[in-house]
Amino acid sequence: MNNDLLDRLAAVLNERKQADPQSSYVASLYAKGLDAILKKVGEEATETVIAAKNADSAQLIYEIADLWFHTLVVLVHQDLHPQAVLDELDRRFGLSGIEEKASRNQH
Amino acid sequence: MNNDLLDRLAAVLNERKQADPQSSYVASLYAKGLDAILKKVGEEATETVIAAKNADSAQLIYEIADLWFHTLVVLVHQDLHPQAVLDELDRRFGLSGIEEKASRNQH
Amino acid sequence: MNNDLLDRLAAVLNERKQADPQSSYVASLYAKGLDAILKKVGEEATETVIAAKNADSAQLIYEIADLWFHTLVVLVHQDLHPQAVLDELDRRFGLSGIEEKASRNQH
Amino acid sequence: MNNDLLDRLAAVLNERKQADPQSSYVASLYAKGLDAILKKVGEEATETVIAAKNADSAQLIYEIADLWFHTLVVLVHQDLHPQAVLDELDRRFGLSGIEEKASRNQH
Repeated sequence: MNNDLLDRLAAVLNERKQADPQSSYVASLYAKGLDAILKKVGEEATETVIAAKNADSAQLIYEIADLWFHTLVVLVHQDLHPQAVLDELDRRFGLSGIEEKASRNQH
Repeated sequence: MNNDLLDRLAAVLNERKQADPQSSYVASLYAKGLDAILKKVGEEATETVIAAKNADSAQLIYEIADLWFHTLVVLVHQDLHPQAVLDELDRRFGLSGIEEKASRNQH
Repeated sequence: MNNDLLDRLAAVLNERKQADPQSSYVASLYAKGLDAILKKVGEEATETVIAAKNADSAQLIYEIADLWFHTLVVLVHQDLHPQAVLDELDRRFGLSGIEEKASRNQH
Repeated sequence: MNNDLLDRLAAVLNERKQADPQSSYVASLYAKGLDAILKKVGEEATETVIAAKNADSAQLIYEIADLWFHTLVVLVHQDLHPQAVLDELDRRFGLSGIEEKASRNQH
């Protein structure tokens, strides 16, 4: 189901690359270009930090959703698929999750 | 399958809350506390921006995985579940994804 | 002369604490509160990174001015004076600047 | 006196461009390159946000000093002088500081 969600999101984000910049928020972001998208990533990361410091769970979930969303826009803008990120997380956590630290240290 | 991945990740991150700080990277992060985890979120966001500006796809995927990973650690540290973030993304994109802009504007 | 500039800036930023929120940008920021000011710090830091990656000197100077400016607003909001930051930099660099690394490591 | 401080800092940071990477923290940063310096800017911005949220004045001063310091390293790395940032701030605040909002809006 999440898989469906991320696949659907990636499909929607891909479609919007061709859309009129005035037709949606994402289409307007693509029109502004990579730097505008990256500014949003920085902004949402700061807002995540602030929401966490405020111990505001609803706001924290909202800001992390915003942060993930804008990283998805970065990926699609760069012609990458969110699945690549999940594969990387899967690789790190392997079958058992036990190898996490070791796999990080190999980087 | 991603659902499995995120659920498995959340489960592993939860387990590590009880673990010896020296037993894994995540256990050591929990021991350092929320501020240390949030510093990582800020760090990985900046590294995501830099990787995107370098047009380095492998690095970009790696940094976004790191960013998602540390936001998962924030969520679990605050006793939240990653599913809440997916639900928020799902809510925004609704059945068709067409409503995205409007739902953002209602915030 | 710079001393004059930073002192003058601190004086102006202090005055604006009492000002009508609609009378200036800074007065409106104070009215929004600390979180709004901190979001600007995160934003300007990201814009600094992007300007540097673009090797755009004029933009880089502009963004660093914005970043310093908003950190000055944070300081004044917290009833601190920019001189405290200069004193900290002076302390680290001492008489000759040679001690910089050692003084950092003591932290 | 601050002028002296920033001039002295800029002079020290310039000298270190020729220095052995192992001779000082700044020399090692230059050796790592622009991306490593920019990561520090992102890091220190996040630490500034966290220190402000903790209402920890000593830490806040320390983190803003770190943030200014690393932006100075960025400037010198890009063959710019900190005076350019002060001139930009001076330009915005003019003789009286009253014009601040208008000058921002012209950007």
